[in-house]
Amino acid sequence: MVSRVVYGRGSFNQLPEIVESKRVNTKAPFIYLVDEVFKGNSWLTSRIPLSYNDEIIYISANEEPKTSQVDELVEQIILSHQDKPSGIIGIGGGTLLDLSKAVSIMLTNEGEAKDYQGWDLVKNPAVYHVGIPTISGTGAEVSRTTVLTGPEKKLGINSDYTPFDQVILDPDLTKDVPKQQWFYTGMDCYIHCIESLQGTYLNAFSKSYGEKALELCKNVFLDTSFSEEEKQEQLMMASWHGGMSIAYSQVGVAHAMSYGLSFLLGVKHGVGNCIVFDHLEEFYPEGVALFKEMKQLNNIQLPKNICANLTDEEYDIMIKVALSLKPLWENALGKKWDQIMTPKKLKSLYQLM
Amino acid sequence: MVSRVVYGRGSFNQLPEIVESKRVNTKAPFIYLVDEVFKGNSWLTSRIPLSYNDEIIYISANEEPKTSQVDELVEQIILSHQDKPSGIIGIGGGTLLDLSKAVSIMLTNEGEAKDYQGWDLVKNPAVYHVGIPTISGTGAEVSRTTVLTGPEKKLGINSDYTPFDQVILDPDLTKDVPKQQWFYTGMDCYIHCIESLQGTYLNAFSKSYGEKALELCKNVFLDTSFSEEEKQEQLMMASWHGGMSIAYSQVGVAHAMSYGLSFLLGVKHGVGNCIVFDHLEEFYPEGVALFKEMKQLNNIQLPKNICANLTDEEYDIMIKVALSLKPLWENALGKKWDQIMTPKKLKSLYQLM
Repeated sequence: MVSRVVYGRGSFNQLPEIVESKRVNTKAPFIYLVDEVFKGNSWLTSRIPLSYNDEIIYISANEEPKTSQVDELVEQIILSHQDKPSGIIGIGGGTLLDLSKAVSIMLTNEGEAKDYQGWDLVKNPAVYHVGIPTISGTGAEVSRTTVLTGPEKKLGINSDYTPFDQVILDPDLTKDVPKQQWFYTGMDCYIHCIESLQGTYLNAFSKSYGEKALELCKNVFLDTSFSEEEKQEQLMMASWHGGMSIAYSQVGVAHAMSYGLSFLLGVKHGVGNCIVFDHLEEFYPEGVALFKEMKQLNNIQLPKNICANLTDEEYDIMIKVALSLKPLWENALGKKWDQIMTPKKLKSLYQLM
Repeated sequence: MVSRVVYGRGSFNQLPEIVESKRVNTKAPFIYLVDEVFKGNSWLTSRIPLSYNDEIIYISANEEPKTSQVDELVEQIILSHQDKPSGIIGIGGGTLLDLSKAVSIMLTNEGEAKDYQGWDLVKNPAVYHVGIPTISGTGAEVSRTTVLTGPEKKLGINSDYTPFDQVILDPDLTKDVPKQQWFYTGMDCYIHCIESLQGTYLNAFSKSYGEKALELCKNVFLDTSFSEEEKQEQLMMASWHGGMSIAYSQVGVAHAMSYGLSFLLGVKHGVGNCIVFDHLEEFYPEGVALFKEMKQLNNIQLPKNICANLTDEEYDIMIKVALSLKPLWENALGKKWDQIMTPKKLKSLYQLM
C-alpha cells in the first residue's frame, strides 16, 4: 500500500518539505514527470521545487502509456544525470502516475519494462516515488499496478514495489479538468466499482471500499445539490477508495474489452470503458442503467462506430488481448466464463461499438 | 500508513510465509506478543511458526498498556537474545497491538518509552512489526499511534514509524470474543466515528472513511438481519476504516474524558468510552441516542457510580489529564473550547459516572 498520504486543499504546497528530506545527495536529482497540459501553467509549475540538477519532463497523456516509453524515459534520465535520481514525482492523471511508477521501478531493475508485465516479477525496490493526481477516477494513485501497453500485451507491472511511497491528494489540482475528461475518468472509478462489487472475487475488504467509492460517484454525477468544490473532494476520495477496492478484488467485462480497444485502436482507457460499458446491460443491468442516466444528466456524447471499419484480423487481435485477461473474466462470469464469453460472442459485442 | 495488508478468513495461515522472508538471520528471532487468553488455545497457537530462537510472550490485556511495561518487555527481549529481533508480531486487541508497535520502536530508539509520548519524536525506524487483530474496534491495527499510560500522561507515540509493516485481517480470529467485550470494543470505533464526523477538524478524506465505518457499526449493532460471520467481517472493516478516519482527523469529548478515567482508575479504554459517552447527550445528541438503542438491543449493562467515592484530589488528577488533550477538545468544541469545558463543568460530568 501507499506508505504516506497527505490530503487537503493546498496540500500541494507541502511538496518541497516532503521531497527535500528524501534527497540522496546533490547529484541525485528529483525528476518530475508532469502532464504537458501544465506546461506554462505557472499556478502549478511555480510550486514545483527545483534545486541542483532537478528536472521537469513534460509528457503528453494523449496516448496510453507504453513499455517502450518507460524504457526511453529511463534511458533519458540515466544519460543526463551522474547519479541515480533521489526520486520520481508524477503529476497528472493515470498515464503520468503509471509512467512514474514504472520509471521508478525500471531505474533499479535490469532489462526492459515489458519483462515485468505481470504479477510480482519485480526483484528490487523502486527508487522513492511520489504521486500527485490532477484528475480523479483511475485509482492509479493508490494501486499496486502500473498498466502499460507492451509489444504483446496491455498488462500492469503488479508488485509490492509499485505503490507510491507518498501521495499528495489536493482537490484544488483538479479544478480545471475539462468536463468530458472529468466524466470519462470519473466513470473509470464508477465502472470498476460496479465490476468489483458484482464480481465473484469480492470480499468484505473490497466491498466496504467499493461501496463507499460507488456512493461518492453517485453523489458527484447524479446529485446536483453538491458544489463544484464538494464534487472535486468527493471524486478524489472515490478514486482513492475505488483503487483500494480493486487492490483486493478484480475488474470485469468492461475493463477486459476496453483493454482490447486500447491495444488495437489506442483508445484512452477512460473513454474506452464508457464506450464498452454502454453496451453491457446483459452483464450489469442496474449499473448500466445508472450509467446511462449519468451520461444524460452530464450531457455526454460518446464516440460511436469506432469498430465499424475493422478487418477480421483486427477483430481477432482485440479479442485475443481481451480474452487473455482470464482473472477479469473469471471474476465477472465465474469459473466457466469461457463457455459464456466465446470469441464469437465477444466479436458481436465489439461490433455494437 | 500500513505497508501491506492481507484480508480474509483463514489468512492467518499465511503468517509463516509472510514472516520467514523477513528473517534477518537465525540468531535474530521473531517475538510474538500474544494476548494470554490464547494460552493453551492450540487452534490459534499451533499456527504460530516458531523456528530457531523465536519466542511467544503471553501478555494480559486486563490493564491498559504502560510505558514501563514497554521498557520491561524491551529489556527482557534484549537480555534473552543475542541479536536484535527480526520482527515483533502482535496478536490480540488494542493493548497487544499497541504494545507491539511500541516495543518495535523502542528496540531501535534510545531511552525510555515515556520520552516518545507525543508527535513525531521517534528518530529511528522501528524493527519490522506485524499486527494481527483478534478483536475489532480500536483501529490500533491501522493507526500511526500507540496509546500508552506513562508516569505523567496517557498519550500515544505518534510517528511515521509507528504503523505496522504488515497487517493480517482474519475475521475468523474474532469468533470467540465474549459478548460484552465485543460491544465495548466495537463502540470504541462507533464513538470515535461520531466524534470525528462531528468534529471541526473533519476533511473529505476522514469523512469518507468515518461514514463507512459508522455505517458498518450500525449494521453490526442495530441490524439483526446479518449473520455472525457477516458481523465479524463488517466490524473488522469498520475498525479498519475508523482507524483510517482518525489518522487525519481527531476524536473528541468522550475520548478525552475516557483517558482521564483510564489514567486514574485503570478503566479499560473500550468500557471507559461507553461509560462516558452514555452521558454526553449535550455534545452528541444523535450519536448518544443511537448508542442507547444499541446498548439496549445488545443487552449491555454498563458499570455505574465508578466515580462515587473519589476525593477532590482524585477528581483534579482526572480533570488535569483530560484537559491536557487540547486537540481533542478543540476538535469537539472549537477554538474557544476552554470557555465551554471548564474544570467545574468537567467535574460535574464525571460526577454522573
